[in-house]
Amino acid sequence: MANIENTTIPEKTIERLSEYRRTLLKCHEQGITHIFSHVLAGMHGITAVQVRRDLMLIGFSSDTKKGYDVRVLIDFITNILYSEQPMNMAVIGMGHLGQAVTKYFNGKGLKLRITAAFDIDERKVGQTIDGIRCYHIDEFESMVTDLDISIVIVSLPTSSAESLVLPIINAGIKGVLNFTSAPLNFPQGIVVENYDITTLLEKVAYFVKVAEENNN
Amino acid sequence: MANIENTTIPEKTIERLSEYRRTLLKCHEQGITHIFSHVLAGMHGITAVQVRRDLMLIGFSSDTKKGYDVRVLIDFITNILYSEQPMNMAVIGMGHLGQAVTKYFNGKGLKLRITAAFDIDERKVGQTIDGIRCYHIDEFESMVTDLDISIVIVSLPTSSAESLVLPIINAGIKGVLNFTSAPLNFPQGIVVENYDITTLLEKVAYFVKVAEENNN
Repeated sequence: MANIENTTIPEKTIERLSEYRRTLLKCHEQGITHIFSHVLAGMHGITAVQVRRDLMLIGFSSDTKKGYDVRVLIDFITNILYSEQPMNMAVIGMGHLGQAVTKYFNGKGLKLRITAAFDIDERKVGQTIDGIRCYHIDEFESMVTDLDISIVIVSLPTSSAESLVLPIINAGIKGVLNFTSAPLNFPQGIVVENYDITTLLEKVAYFVKVAEENNN
Repeated sequence: MANIENTTIPEKTIERLSEYRRTLLKCHEQGITHIFSHVLAGMHGITAVQVRRDLMLIGFSSDTKKGYDVRVLIDFITNILYSEQPMNMAVIGMGHLGQAVTKYFNGKGLKLRITAAFDIDERKVGQTIDGIRCYHIDEFESMVTDLDISIVIVSLPTSSAESLVLPIINAGIKGVLNFTSAPLNFPQGIVVENYDITTLLEKVAYFVKVAEENNN
């Protein structure tokens, strides 16, 4: 991730904390009150040492005889990951990917909320899709202010992505999750996560290839 | 990534190589024949040292006076990332996300090809969506053999994901890109990349929060 300064928790740990939290929420729903580090680790295909190291890093300690208190650990991780105020997000590009992301988040009760969508397609602008109002991209800067949006999810065709860089900067957006194939560069101070699905697939394919070569 | 052994190139380097390659392909299309490491680096928001280190790691060296030969570097990275044989992939779950991924890959001329889709929705089964034939999930194991599929993209609702683990193992699938919120665990030898979009967004939100705290 580009443009990050003065943070002490590594990216990979943040990813795992996010994953632990979702698993713990599921455990809590099922009435599970305590969980051992090796059980949590097993559910994520990693080692208990890794889990304990991650939790040590955020200063969480626990009575190890009964395992971690699920409710307490959920609250602890939530405090690390989230601000007290919910953050508002917008989706730019309400094609299949934009709609998948919106649908996915709707009704999950997260402190992250998608509160608006932007598109240029006249069939979408002015509509409410999966509970989210879709505005024309020309209204982007004013709506970001009106709706107090701090994070955008860029899910439009790669060819249009570059043209969004200036509006995103001008609107005062603080974080960008970019799903297009165009790596978007922003000035220091704007958090950017470039996530091209091609990269993920090429990575899986590479490790499959290596595994096959090792077997031969 | 879980279940990886005997690989020498780190995951993050593989991700960047995939990204460099796409940028280089675009440069090549535009008639650019040579590129300096600091230019390539700038396009990805990273340092030239990082680019040079990645390329050194894969054994690529070059006449630094003119910069890297774009065509040669593309071929070099392609040989690292890809097998000689194209790998066939299937999408499981042709909702918005599955369709977004399929649409995205179609006609890109990659050596990775989506050759089939699976769903349980009767309106989709038997149809051809974006050029990809959609089969019923009950046909999964036999179609994987018939179509020589080695990688699957799991893009169905999280609640159904667990039920796929056994069919995926039995079918002899070698790599899984999992977009659901359920971390899927497979035996050693199957490459798994769990990519929950919530994790990506929580990560961006966390670093936005940290940046805000540092500014206060």
